[in-house]
Amino acid sequence: MKANIEKVLLGDQLAGAKLIRRLEEGDPAGIEELKVLYPHTGNAFVLGITGPAGCGKSTLITHIIAEYRNRNLTVGVVAVDPSSPLSGGAFLGDRLRMRRHTEDPGVFIRSMATRGHLGGLSKTTQETVMVLDAMGYAIIIIETVGVGQAEVEIAGIAHTKAIVCLPGMGDDIQAMKAGLLEIGDVFVVNKADRPGADDVVMQLQSMLEMGTRAKEDWHPPVLKTAAVNAEGIEELVNAFWSHREYLLGSGEFSAHNFEQSFQLLRRLVMEMAADKIFNASSESKDLQTLLDALKKHHVDPFTAAEKLVKDL
Amino acid sequence: MKANIEKVLLGDQLAGAKLIRRLEEGDPAGIEELKVLYPHTGNAFVLGITGPAGCGKSTLITHIIAEYRNRNLTVGVVAVDPSSPLSGGAFLGDRLRMRRHTEDPGVFIRSMATRGHLGGLSKTTQETVMVLDAMGYAIIIIETVGVGQAEVEIAGIAHTKAIVCLPGMGDDIQAMKAGLLEIGDVFVVNKADRPGADDVVMQLQSMLEMGTRAKEDWHPPVLKTAAVNAEGIEELVNAFWSHREYLLGSGEFSAHNFEQSFQLLRRLVMEMAADKIFNASSESKDLQTLLDALKKHHVDPFTAAEKLVKDL
Repeated sequence: MKANIEKVLLGDQLAGAKLIRRLEEGDPAGIEELKVLYPHTGNAFVLGITGPAGCGKSTLITHIIAEYRNRNLTVGVVAVDPSSPLSGGAFLGDRLRMRRHTEDPGVFIRSMATRGHLGGLSKTTQETVMVLDAMGYAIIIIETVGVGQAEVEIAGIAHTKAIVCLPGMGDDIQAMKAGLLEIGDVFVVNKADRPGADDVVMQLQSMLEMGTRAKEDWHPPVLKTAAVNAEGIEELVNAFWSHREYLLGSGEFSAHNFEQSFQLLRRLVMEMAADKIFNASSESKDLQTLLDALKKHHVDPFTAAEKLVKDL
Repeated sequence: MKANIEKVLLGDQLAGAKLIRRLEEGDPAGIEELKVLYPHTGNAFVLGITGPAGCGKSTLITHIIAEYRNRNLTVGVVAVDPSSPLSGGAFLGDRLRMRRHTEDPGVFIRSMATRGHLGGLSKTTQETVMVLDAMGYAIIIIETVGVGQAEVEIAGIAHTKAIVCLPGMGDDIQAMKAGLLEIGDVFVVNKADRPGADDVVMQLQSMLEMGTRAKEDWHPPVLKTAAVNAEGIEELVNAFWSHREYLLGSGEFSAHNFEQSFQLLRRLVMEMAADKIFNASSESKDLQTLLDALKKHHVDPFTAAEKLVKDL
């Protein structure tokens, strides 16, 4: 274990991949390693990039990685979108474009398995970000599809959340009101070479102005990119950096890091407490009687839960 | 409270809506009502209908409701998709089509707010299903977009899970492998009047045959519908009924109901235990010291969680 930890701290990709696999499998040895690594985390700038399938996120990310590499920064990527080409998924063209990065030791790309129980995905993503952080990657990009609840939650792990839109998304942009609009720090209209790009930019800007966002000093910019020919990428990466500066200056950067640790702590406490109750009582006749009563509808889940927690 | 409970049991839609709103808001009074209603649940047949945005789910569901009404069964609908026309969302045409149902007292449609913390959506959906169940609806339909992790989890609430696909979905069907293929009990190729429908049917059938599904006696059928002119709806509703018969015959129906109650119990225990720890200790100096150490990276979240749960 100790040897693997040292390798992870030196940025060894094989050692990092091994640890991430362990964490995905819920191997307690993985958690033991992460405990030792924890003091070495909290340095990375975590960037969440989210948007619907087909919005060109992966190509965009490929260019963003290249731009960061030009600036001499290392980049780790966590792809949560199962259909993402970054995660070895779909399209040959994208895989070819990615190849230059996969051969670059300053870039490390991991994809998350999207199965497992609710909340599990978000926990594993957070743990993976901690590993990449301890490995020393300056920038960590999380890619999500941003449609479901879990994906929005995962985006919350990031310091800066970029939302990718497309020209001609009319109805979808309306639907975005429901959540993505409130969480975005930077908005990107990708494929801006297509007709209607300026309409979407204006629509987003007016929605942001009218929006219910909390008053804050950061005004989310709306930028245009054309990922196919890398237009607007430099400006986009500059906008990410400006937001990072803003977070650092306002103290929100470290507040965010603490909030993430606290949320992880709370999730862990929830799981451990439930395990303690259900495992400790698994031989107990009381639990069996209670579950039996639940099965027969003689007790409801709410009353049963109150009883179990009270007995703690 | 008692008056409202009696009204809910008589199927009063206003009383039901009031209770659901309370549950969404996390009002403890709502939980108290649900406790009393719990013995009256467990009778409904819960049907999950999931598929990507734009696959025509809502129109399809409109026809399914009509078919159940023809069979003299009452229908409750929980729309989790925020962009769903069923939830009062988007398109005028669909709203007009829905009107005949909204004026029918044998149909009750509720839409879920999709915000709030992870897992919250799934819990509220389950609670809403319990209310509709207690109100006496024979059929409860849950509509989800089926892209995210939470949505897949929500689909798990249903006895029968129908997955809606479209002709020309090639890549998306590949991506489906990741999850939806394993959970579907009935597959629907909607808009089957479009070219390529038979290709998707064949693709799905061969994927189901090769698939990693557990060996079981139920072989998920793949059906074609054209929701616009209501083709194939009768056969589809027959397929749902066959699956229900299968579940009842194999004992899986009641096993599923118990599993749902147990999962709710576990989630409640997790939340209550965490509340107990963080509220009870909020005045405690130990907790403050621990959180301070977490902030300074002097302790990791895993060790901190172990300590808190051990001290329970």
